Amino acid sequence: MKHRDEFCQARRGEIQLPHGRVQTPVFMPVGTQGTVKALSHQMVEDIGFEIILGNTYHLYLRPGTEVIADFGGLHEFSTWNRNILTDSGGFQVFSLSPFRKITDEGVQFRSHIDGSKHMLTPESVVEIQRVLGSDIQMVLDVCTEHGIDKKSAHKALTTTTRWAKRAKDAWQQSLGDYRGAAFGIVQGNFFEDLRAQSAQELSELDFPGYAIGGLSVGEPPEVFEHFLHYTAPLLPTGKPKYVMGIGTPDYILSAVEAGIDMFDCVFPTRVARNGYFFSRDGRINIKNERYRRDTQPIDLDSPISMYSRAYLRHLFKAGEMLGPMLATRHNLWFLHTFMTEIRTAIEENRFLEYKNTFLERYGRGMGNTI
Amino acid sequence: MKHRDEFCQARRGEIQLPHGRVQTPVFMPVGTQGTVKALSHQMVEDIGFEIILGNTYHLYLRPGTEVIADFGGLHEFSTWNRNILTDSGGFQVFSLSPFRKITDEGVQFRSHIDGSKHMLTPESVVEIQRVLGSDIQMVLDVCTEHGIDKKSAHKALTTTTRWAKRAKDAWQQSLGDYRGAAFGIVQGNFFEDLRAQSAQELSELDFPGYAIGGLSVGEPPEVFEHFLHYTAPLLPTGKPKYVMGIGTPDYILSAVEAGIDMFDCVFPTRVARNGYFFSRDGRINIKNERYRRDTQPIDLDSPISMYSRAYLRHLFKAGEMLGPMLATRHNLWFLHTFMTEIRTAIEENRFLEYKNTFLERYGRGMGNTI
Repeated sequence: MKHRDEFCQARRGEIQLPHGRVQTPVFMPVGTQGTVKALSHQMVEDIGFEIILGNTYHLYLRPGTEVIADFGGLHEFSTWNRNILTDSGGFQVFSLSPFRKITDEGVQFRSHIDGSKHMLTPESVVEIQRVLGSDIQMVLDVCTEHGIDKKSAHKALTTTTRWAKRAKDAWQQSLGDYRGAAFGIVQGNFFEDLRAQSAQELSELDFPGYAIGGLSVGEPPEVFEHFLHYTAPLLPTGKPKYVMGIGTPDYILSAVEAGIDMFDCVFPTRVARNGYFFSRDGRINIKNERYRRDTQPIDLDSPISMYSRAYLRHLFKAGEMLGPMLATRHNLWFLHTFMTEIRTAIEENRFLEYKNTFLERYGRGMGNTI
Repeated sequence: MKHRDEFCQARRGEIQLPHGRVQTPVFMPVGTQGTVKALSHQMVEDIGFEIILGNTYHLYLRPGTEVIADFGGLHEFSTWNRNILTDSGGFQVFSLSPFRKITDEGVQFRSHIDGSKHMLTPESVVEIQRVLGSDIQMVLDVCTEHGIDKKSAHKALTTTTRWAKRAKDAWQQSLGDYRGAAFGIVQGNFFEDLRAQSAQELSELDFPGYAIGGLSVGEPPEVFEHFLHYTAPLLPTGKPKYVMGIGTPDYILSAVEAGIDMFDCVFPTRVARNGYFFSRDGRINIKNERYRRDTQPIDLDSPISMYSRAYLRHLFKAGEMLGPMLATRHNLWFLHTFMTEIRTAIEENRFLEYKNTFLERYGRGMGNTI
């Protein structure tokens, strides 16, 4: 941590990783299958991103760890030269697999692609991420949904802690040529005492960083907000704090205010492919009739400012691939610029002012919400 | 024409157009709806193309001529700074419209998008292409399919010539600020005497260039070849000769040998989106299992040589948009390079040798034909 805003928990930091430094708070684009959808990695680098995500579950199933091993890792396979964070695969097992069974050993599941049977354990997940060459790897955890009872939440938490210990040991043994960090994941569902217990148990394991898991799983925004702000201070101050599934300006601002350093989300790139452009005046649905003859760009500073709204609308109405390509590039540029401004605001102790000014304009904007 | 190969009809030329010179023989990528699918126009320019196509029928219906007029033309609307050739829309009326009726006046049809009723006349087609700012516009013709009787072919030919006269007059009146060329189109179906008659009648109209229409409409390759070589010499030597729907190396070589200067086809970009890569050793179906762990690029000189075949295969197997983006870029680069080599070979009077050497390797290559 380089600086904390004088008036809130917002922090300005820097993480040193095998593929260079990462300035925080940082938004990380998601490259699920070894590609940030609709962009080349060169374009992602040109925007200025220092770290992207990959998904262990997807890459393990396809192309398969052995293919990526041939190349010496995901960086070489996918031609991305900066940092990669990979998740543990646990979340996808819970959300995508048609079958799963949790045992003490790990989680059994069937592939959503071909139905084949697989098992992930805390140790195998560390090994897969080592082969991928992840600069930050996540430990296997048990993710639970909103609304389960406390007993189930407690059971998941117990398993999560036990797995975290095994993962820590496996990760330490994996170090050598491999120099990636491993982050623990706090669970505890939506019970304050369980969150506190999880944070306590994981902190004792002394991971290089921590994620707050099990948020953005369908809970109301105020519940999300409460548990985010409740859990964040329970984690060690000197370590990076990461929350998955945050990718809209309002949620990012809330997370930064809570002292979170890292986020990722498919939302900005997913909505881009459906014709939604982020702007300082709110989200624009480019397919709207009002843009039919609009000769202005989305944003004068955007790398796609040579294109008019009318042309972008045409591309989406005509189903042309260039539409998603340009919208993705724009939305990621927008978030990168947004994060740069946030970092400067924190350094100058005016994060809260920046947040309010931004949201005031964003909220009363062109206002096509999704 | 700058030079003719000493041993065949292959010609090396240059066409001066409002948006710069075009070196011929030339392959022109197709940007049907104001975008070459899966690439930005900047990428198309970076490959080196001096001219692309747009489709009048599509652009007239969507976004609509009035939208493009707001921008001062298709170049500005689509951010393409080099030349654009637009077709007359006639071919799409015949192939896409659920309803059409030819009268002396023009062709009535219904939109394939919303069923709305429209009429194109030789004069309105000139006017639409003037508004688009086409550097080369095509006159409205009556395209016929393979296998119709001679009487029907003759009737279509008569209408085509009559419309060509009206188009020529309208085009001449449109000149002023607008400086685009207009090309006539030879029809006559698969009857030698009708082809000769059409060539004769259109030559008398003295257009700046000529297309051989009504080929690649389902006839066997040897029939195509015969009528191409039969019709080409009937056109004025000093004018550019253009054949639509040619975009594979073997057809291009055949057309160049017949003295054709210009071609276009959606084939190279369409098959790219399905995972087929052009190479000197034949067409590669990247989804083939044999490329699963192939760490080599498609071609060392390609602008996508940083990507391995294994990664490209992964992108297509995983349904990632980057696959079509990279394959399109590669195939257009391949054809651009191919045309550059053809032009040099003609200048050095060794086109036939080049053709034979190329086809020999191409034919015995990795040979996944489509």
